Amino acid sequence: MTAHRTSTGTDPTGGRPVVPSLGRQRPLGLNEVQLTSGFWATLQATNAAATFEHCEHWMERLGWLANFDRVAAGTTGPDRPGWSFSDSEVYKLIEALSWEFGRSGNPAADEAVRRLTARIAPAQDPDGYLNTCYGHAHQQPRYSDLEMGHELYCTGHLLQAAVARLRTTGEDELVRVARRAADHVCETFGDDGLRAVCGHPEIEIGLAELGRALCEERYLEQARLFVDRRGHGTLRDIPLGRAYFQDDVPVRKADTWRGHAVRALYLAAAAVDVAVEYDDASLLDAVRRQWAHAVARQTYLTGGMGSRHQDEAFGADWELPPDRAYCETCAGVASVMVSWRLYLATGDIRYADLIERTFLNVIATSPRSDGRAFFYANPLHQRVAGNWPGEDRVSLRAESGARAAWFDVSCCPTNVARTLATWHSYAATAGEGELTLLQYAGMRISADLGCGRTLGLEVATSYPDDGLVVVRVRQAPAEAVALRLRVPSWAHGAMLEEGERRHDVAPGTAVVDRELVPGEEIRLHLPVTPRFTRPDRRVDAVRGCVAVERGPLVYCAESVDLPPGTRLDDVTVDTSHAPMDGDGGVLVRGLVGPETDAEPSWPYAAAADGAPGCAEAAEIVLVPYHRWAERGPSEMRVWLPATARDRTTR
Amino acid sequence: MTAHRTSTGTDPTGGRPVVPSLGRQRPLGLNEVQLTSGFWATLQATNAAATFEHCEHWMERLGWLANFDRVAAGTTGPDRPGWSFSDSEVYKLIEALSWEFGRSGNPAADEAVRRLTARIAPAQDPDGYLNTCYGHAHQQPRYSDLEMGHELYCTGHLLQAAVARLRTTGEDELVRVARRAADHVCETFGDDGLRAVCGHPEIEIGLAELGRALCEERYLEQARLFVDRRGHGTLRDIPLGRAYFQDDVPVRKADTWRGHAVRALYLAAAAVDVAVEYDDASLLDAVRRQWAHAVARQTYLTGGMGSRHQDEAFGADWELPPDRAYCETCAGVASVMVSWRLYLATGDIRYADLIERTFLNVIATSPRSDGRAFFYANPLHQRVAGNWPGEDRVSLRAESGARAAWFDVSCCPTNVARTLATWHSYAATAGEGELTLLQYAGMRISADLGCGRTLGLEVATSYPDDGLVVVRVRQAPAEAVALRLRVPSWAHGAMLEEGERRHDVAPGTAVVDRELVPGEEIRLHLPVTPRFTRPDRRVDAVRGCVAVERGPLVYCAESVDLPPGTRLDDVTVDTSHAPMDGDGGVLVRGLVGPETDAEPSWPYAAAADGAPGCAEAAEIVLVPYHRWAERGPSEMRVWLPATARDRTTR
Repeated sequence: MTAHRTSTGTDPTGGRPVVPSLGRQRPLGLNEVQLTSGFWATLQATNAAATFEHCEHWMERLGWLANFDRVAAGTTGPDRPGWSFSDSEVYKLIEALSWEFGRSGNPAADEAVRRLTARIAPAQDPDGYLNTCYGHAHQQPRYSDLEMGHELYCTGHLLQAAVARLRTTGEDELVRVARRAADHVCETFGDDGLRAVCGHPEIEIGLAELGRALCEERYLEQARLFVDRRGHGTLRDIPLGRAYFQDDVPVRKADTWRGHAVRALYLAAAAVDVAVEYDDASLLDAVRRQWAHAVARQTYLTGGMGSRHQDEAFGADWELPPDRAYCETCAGVASVMVSWRLYLATGDIRYADLIERTFLNVIATSPRSDGRAFFYANPLHQRVAGNWPGEDRVSLRAESGARAAWFDVSCCPTNVARTLATWHSYAATAGEGELTLLQYAGMRISADLGCGRTLGLEVATSYPDDGLVVVRVRQAPAEAVALRLRVPSWAHGAMLEEGERRHDVAPGTAVVDRELVPGEEIRLHLPVTPRFTRPDRRVDAVRGCVAVERGPLVYCAESVDLPPGTRLDDVTVDTSHAPMDGDGGVLVRGLVGPETDAEPSWPYAAAADGAPGCAEAAEIVLVPYHRWAERGPSEMRVWLPATARDRTTR
Repeated sequence: MTAHRTSTGTDPTGGRPVVPSLGRQRPLGLNEVQLTSGFWATLQATNAAATFEHCEHWMERLGWLANFDRVAAGTTGPDRPGWSFSDSEVYKLIEALSWEFGRSGNPAADEAVRRLTARIAPAQDPDGYLNTCYGHAHQQPRYSDLEMGHELYCTGHLLQAAVARLRTTGEDELVRVARRAADHVCETFGDDGLRAVCGHPEIEIGLAELGRALCEERYLEQARLFVDRRGHGTLRDIPLGRAYFQDDVPVRKADTWRGHAVRALYLAAAAVDVAVEYDDASLLDAVRRQWAHAVARQTYLTGGMGSRHQDEAFGADWELPPDRAYCETCAGVASVMVSWRLYLATGDIRYADLIERTFLNVIATSPRSDGRAFFYANPLHQRVAGNWPGEDRVSLRAESGARAAWFDVSCCPTNVARTLATWHSYAATAGEGELTLLQYAGMRISADLGCGRTLGLEVATSYPDDGLVVVRVRQAPAEAVALRLRVPSWAHGAMLEEGERRHDVAPGTAVVDRELVPGEEIRLHLPVTPRFTRPDRRVDAVRGCVAVERGPLVYCAESVDLPPGTRLDDVTVDTSHAPMDGDGGVLVRGLVGPETDAEPSWPYAAAADGAPGCAEAAEIVLVPYHRWAERGPSEMRVWLPATARDRTTR
């Protein structure tokens, strides 16, 4: 064990979800960065004002909270409500509330954590086991269904909730519950215990981070054991194959992510945690290799991962259908978890590019603007306008084309909640004498750059609507520091302005490496004019199509914006005219045909059919993808067929 | 009840699976049509020589047959092998063996039926209930899981097996077992019984046909009841929705097929049976409307139906991904069942067009040429070469890219077996003074055209390899009869030759309406030169691609036919050169790029990427789709990207 523990592990003011002992970049603490305005501040405010209460309401209503009471009272029966993983939703909500309390100091969040903890703690068995679905009267025995039972998965989320509590409040009852649960896991699954893993990775992340937060090496060691153990076929084979839970190939030997996307990505995140703590370069390289492969061949334009509905899985390379894109919201959260850990470990700015894309086009797409309904799947093409299940109904289906108040399998709302509550954590990192701005929003930063040096900044911007980012220096050491600003990969033609000096900056990182003067402004100009984007020829499902992006945002066409009597199927885009900013969104020129019932009786013929009859030139309005279906059920397309002149690609 | 019973219902020599009481066309009996040579005769021979024994072997080995013994012996336990529907595989095998005995008279087939019947009959409960998965010691109660339990589904296959036995041998023990089972169903689910349906339609077809075969109106009435009952939400809602088992909308009100494709199509077949027997025009029209919709918008070029893996379901209109095409073999069988009933009811030749397409490109694709391994799913694009599970292993997965000896869910092999054993039944039909040739193969026909008129024909052809069909008249009444020959929808430029006279015939039906002379030959010339086929612009998943067809056969490119060091992803087709017949298959001109590891790190960019570097002109060999993966694991594509000049479609 070569890793060195940081001293900030249990710092109650240091709230942030991931604190590696080693790494190229140090995440900022709660006391170092605060959001002040803009897109993400609004989402965080809605999250706090609506989503937490919404989630607790549903979990109470459906009996997921009462499950703890019944275990505590010894009144479990054969009729336990909820899936085997419903406990984890409670833990994710506690994690979200804990981060929120750290961020805002709102006593209601702290009170909610205490209220929930008071119901959870009595359900813990004397030996530390805590699960409301197994091991009690009328229930299956503990660990009798490791493949699908989600027991250790639930425990992992308990540990992450405890980490949030530790890093925002300090040791309390929830932390003590988590300690006992983690000790139980180490005793049961340690070197001398069951040689098994959980079908859904998560315990590994929880153990690693609780180990970091408590400087408890046993937990880290157990996380390492679990990561190393997986891939050797200790889980039963199932019709979907052992790749479903990544038990087919050990992490360090795999070239690609396979199977269930959330499982694959939680495991990858854990592997980075273990690789960093144990300075295991080959394990870190494996995850980097897998990430590069997935981003090149298995990722949607939105950053979405996991195309298959059947097993919520990564598909084959280039298998990226826009209509049947699953792109689970939780896989977006998980992708950010992996990229963030890789960035912290390596400092490679590409990881932050994908984080931004995924935040804005997957995670932000999920919650309705009031924070009380969510997308589970995030397709890039909705063929049939969805059905709104109603505020009062649990959606049985992940795919409705409409945001749902709650789901039968409701992992996404709480995952969104805990992620939004920590969004500021991903905005900047510090190094020795340097600060890197990764994401742009109105925010205040006061970062410790080591050796007593503090850099205080205020960032003002309307990004991503606008491309101007103003960084005002409020406090700076009297020596050179490196202020690094991420220039996104799409930002060709970006420009940095320091006082009178202006210079072009290329995608990657723009660096101001000098003594900074309090009061001075550094301005980054990012070109957010709308642009056409075309797919690699191997992404078969969108051949001959274009998408429109504007800055980091992916846009889409919705049927609600079309002229009456026309259909989204009958729109083509004329790419000889550049897309332009317009009143209601981005405008593209195209052809729109009239709605018609006439159609061929067989959709294959010797000659290709042309445009719909009487197609007319029209301007088509595109809106940011993350806001689609916000105005009611709608057909939607990100990728639009291009007119002929765009198809002469080879 | 207005239908009239035919007198041939129990004619032991009249073996054919569907004998409607009414209808425009009369199916020919076993004594009226025999295959003599060609593609389908070969498949029938392999079916008889290998597949039956193969299926019985696997069902014995896995304990699916012993399940009957255990019920009979009262030794059922909690460890019953097989899924809840494994009984149906035994019944489908008996059905196949019965048709085979009728066709060939091979006593081994008859003996196998008796052997299997002797094990099944003792498992029947005194009240007629017969199922090895429910209602006995250590089992769930009867009809306790109508949604997924498949009890009535199994009974339906028992009844179809009995029909085959009745129509080829006559009443025997199996028929008596089936009668008791059918009586039990009528008593349990009749007007005064449980107002319920089975999650998987099939009992309806079985009851209708057994009712026809035994002139038992109660069975027909029960079939009608089940068809009318479905669509009113008597089944529980499930995460996939009630559309999964078509319990969302009544058949006669639906415009489209929805949910699980095999279920939807079995139900549609039953609805046609009921509509015909009860002269119910609105019900018949509903199925015709659904068929037309599906064929125009939900059907693959191969005839395959049901694109979704997740729920084995029809997708939305135009949702026809080639790579994730499920196209279950059983859905192909079911599609033929529906089209055949619609053809018999209406005489509309379009139904026979789809039957041919589906037979040649879905059903014939399933069995390996030795009849001992099968495709379950039939995608039109295999991105990654499959893994052959081995002759000795049960495949847990429907999708392996390789034919498997047997499946955990093994519905397809027996469905193929029973369908191949009756292929000749679909080749021709008779009407009053007319005979229609629907499918072309070497065959001998001696059909009763009513009023004592017999038309004897011998058909000689190498179709579909060759387009010449020679119809030799062996016997004819001394008066005008109408000999009708189907001209497939693709056969533009077909020509009919009667002695010295030649005339062009258009797709549809070519009719020779005159006195025929024994010894004369009528020759139909069908243009089977290879041709390019293009998709409707709304089939998004194959935009910019072409397929090659040759006569009724769909062709495909396989990686095993590419030059070494090249990949199927790097092939484009130059459509300015027509495809041509070549030595190893059909040849197309195109560009083939070299294999390369270099690839973009992100597959979306401002400019479309072009052809792979150094792409070179090449000839690409295409083979019939139904033979793909016959030479080992392979990547495969039906739809190939076209070079630029083909993309100027609008």
